[in-house]
Amino acid sequence: MSPEPFSFRITDTDGSARRGVLVTPHGTVQTPAFMPVGTRGAVKGITHRDVEDAGAEIILGNTYHLHLRPGDGLIARAGGLHTFIGWPHPILTDSGGYQVFSLAAMRKVSEDGVEFRSHLDGAFCALSPEKATDIQARLGSDIAMVLDEVIGAVGSDPNSTTFAPTGSDPEAVRAAMERSVRWARRARLRLRQLRHDPASAPDVIVTNPGQAQFGIIQGGTSPRLRTESVQATVDIGFEGYAIGGLSVGEPVDVMYEVVGHTAPQLPADRLRYLMGTGMPDDLVECVARGIDMFDCVLPTRNARNGQLLTRHGVLVIRNAQYAEDRQPPDPACGCYTCRQFSRAYLRHLFMAGEMTAATLLTVHNLYFYLDLMRRIRDAIGFGLFEQFRQEFHQAFSRRPQQH
Amino acid sequence: MSPEPFSFRITDTDGSARRGVLVTPHGTVQTPAFMPVGTRGAVKGITHRDVEDAGAEIILGNTYHLHLRPGDGLIARAGGLHTFIGWPHPILTDSGGYQVFSLAAMRKVSEDGVEFRSHLDGAFCALSPEKATDIQARLGSDIAMVLDEVIGAVGSDPNSTTFAPTGSDPEAVRAAMERSVRWARRARLRLRQLRHDPASAPDVIVTNPGQAQFGIIQGGTSPRLRTESVQATVDIGFEGYAIGGLSVGEPVDVMYEVVGHTAPQLPADRLRYLMGTGMPDDLVECVARGIDMFDCVLPTRNARNGQLLTRHGVLVIRNAQYAEDRQPPDPACGCYTCRQFSRAYLRHLFMAGEMTAATLLTVHNLYFYLDLMRRIRDAIGFGLFEQFRQEFHQAFSRRPQQH
Repeated sequence: MSPEPFSFRITDTDGSARRGVLVTPHGTVQTPAFMPVGTRGAVKGITHRDVEDAGAEIILGNTYHLHLRPGDGLIARAGGLHTFIGWPHPILTDSGGYQVFSLAAMRKVSEDGVEFRSHLDGAFCALSPEKATDIQARLGSDIAMVLDEVIGAVGSDPNSTTFAPTGSDPEAVRAAMERSVRWARRARLRLRQLRHDPASAPDVIVTNPGQAQFGIIQGGTSPRLRTESVQATVDIGFEGYAIGGLSVGEPVDVMYEVVGHTAPQLPADRLRYLMGTGMPDDLVECVARGIDMFDCVLPTRNARNGQLLTRHGVLVIRNAQYAEDRQPPDPACGCYTCRQFSRAYLRHLFMAGEMTAATLLTVHNLYFYLDLMRRIRDAIGFGLFEQFRQEFHQAFSRRPQQH
Repeated sequence: MSPEPFSFRITDTDGSARRGVLVTPHGTVQTPAFMPVGTRGAVKGITHRDVEDAGAEIILGNTYHLHLRPGDGLIARAGGLHTFIGWPHPILTDSGGYQVFSLAAMRKVSEDGVEFRSHLDGAFCALSPEKATDIQARLGSDIAMVLDEVIGAVGSDPNSTTFAPTGSDPEAVRAAMERSVRWARRARLRLRQLRHDPASAPDVIVTNPGQAQFGIIQGGTSPRLRTESVQATVDIGFEGYAIGGLSVGEPVDVMYEVVGHTAPQLPADRLRYLMGTGMPDDLVECVARGIDMFDCVLPTRNARNGQLLTRHGVLVIRNAQYAEDRQPPDPACGCYTCRQFSRAYLRHLFMAGEMTAATLLTVHNLYFYLDLMRRIRDAIGFGLFEQFRQEFHQAFSRRPQQH
């Protein structure tokens, strides 16, 4: 596939909410967009055609997992991730940093990068801003992420009391944010080198010359650190910007405040991606604060745990009340699962341990998320986002519901 | 769905091979047919639409499993198995006998029936010819099977040396065959009662009044016992006849001999169903001996174990030789998996433990089986079955293959 220009164009705004079109070398994505997570090159529980049917235009692949197995070298020799996994549409890859900091053992962080042992076999591995860039160049995703330093908990800057502090060392938050900026600069430099002087990196097969790269804003729950991170990261210059370090245990109101503080400071003409979020109401609230892209394992992981997400909230399919319930999971939903199957049947499959239960619940949850994004985009296009948002919250509750 | 007449019509013959059309209350099935096994109301690893895509016109449900969970009463209240599982096409249910004899604990067989404890929770259960008929009447399958007595091993009649004896007590084989005939008579009597005097069985909700019932021929590997079983079972009179007690460990040549001996003695105008068979070459060989219907867990179970069936034989996807193999599993296959994915990608998913590997391999294996049946039917229709059979065997080998 020959490279196409990477571009982003906002078509409608409604308050701080934005509707737009992202063009990548592998096709177009309407925003606000939700990206199903395809950790190892497959969205867990379903096939690509089910992902397409659900309405996904872009998926996320995990650099850490793919680097360890089957390896980015093997994937590059196969022509890149799109070809290797048979998904011809856009792909975003993370930098691998989040998994190194959450999964790998014997982690050692230095200014150069991070050394660790694989969670699969204990093999010694190292990741640096340059190496994370190289790996993603081999994978050939349409959007690559810079390596950032992820710290375990959320902190706040002692110089500000705007957002609730939640117990992490504020100096560690500042140090990680500042290091992330330095790493982002090195990652951008490396990408420029691969773009303009590929001969200088003969061991890196660049499988998607049109690949874009996003910077990541850090700074915990501190407004001051977030602002500093925005300024320094935007100064480097990326095709888009992610907000990282959220959905890591902080109260949801704090998350909304950080997003509401950070997003408007980002360049209006660039994509804004909130990493790893979240529940359906989080998507609505963060679109309201100017976010364009989301990813989250929640719809797929919760499906495998027997939880259906509907416009009313969470439906726990194993509950005895559904044993003879002939209704579909969500009577208002148009997905294959809701068109064809009853709660009673899905409960039976789940209780019997049939893997088809995981598949059918995943089909529904992904459809629900992607349909929510469609409705959000429509509402923004019609200038009715605020009304949509109110109606959504009226129906939706995080408390367990009688469905 | 209102009941339609159950009928079977042979449209072409070629040697002993038959092509035909089976009409059931839930639609038409072209024969020879292969039935994917949907043990608990789902074909393991895939959704109904994938089963339909693969070309299945009929699936098999397991009475034992469905009786224990979620229960045939619950299924009847939901309108029957078709409605409960959302599969509108034909379904055959077994009698539950095979699972009682292979899965249940503390089994006690008497002339009345069999008592056992559930493999799920140890609950005391009992199955009789009448009860197996009632359960299937509640399930409302299009074809119900009579309860037969299954014995653990294959035996032979001492009065004959035609087929190889394989070590079971010949008197036990005779006794089980004779008891199976007596049970078949009781099962038929019960079905007639449910059909013609439903008021006499008020606890049995008959969800499919057009349900047909098949008898089962037993007799191990003894030609004499098989012939006796055919005569006595046909004398009772069923809409079709199954050959049971094969694919239980006997040499494949013996299985072919028993089928070749038994099938021609069955009424030419009735369906002939070989239970639990088998490998692709078994299907070809048993069609050549006059069989119309098959079921087997092999394509679905082997898929979950990483084995792909192709026209050349078995491809073990975990083998290192496929790590960078960009070919589809079978370049001549038209299934979704072969159209879209490489051996390298499927191997990666399998090695990573992604359940999508099981799904994609199941999609291929089922398509391969159902496409084989299509090709068999076409060959019979063209009067070229013998040529097809030779070409099939030339390509196919049970020995591990370099693909």
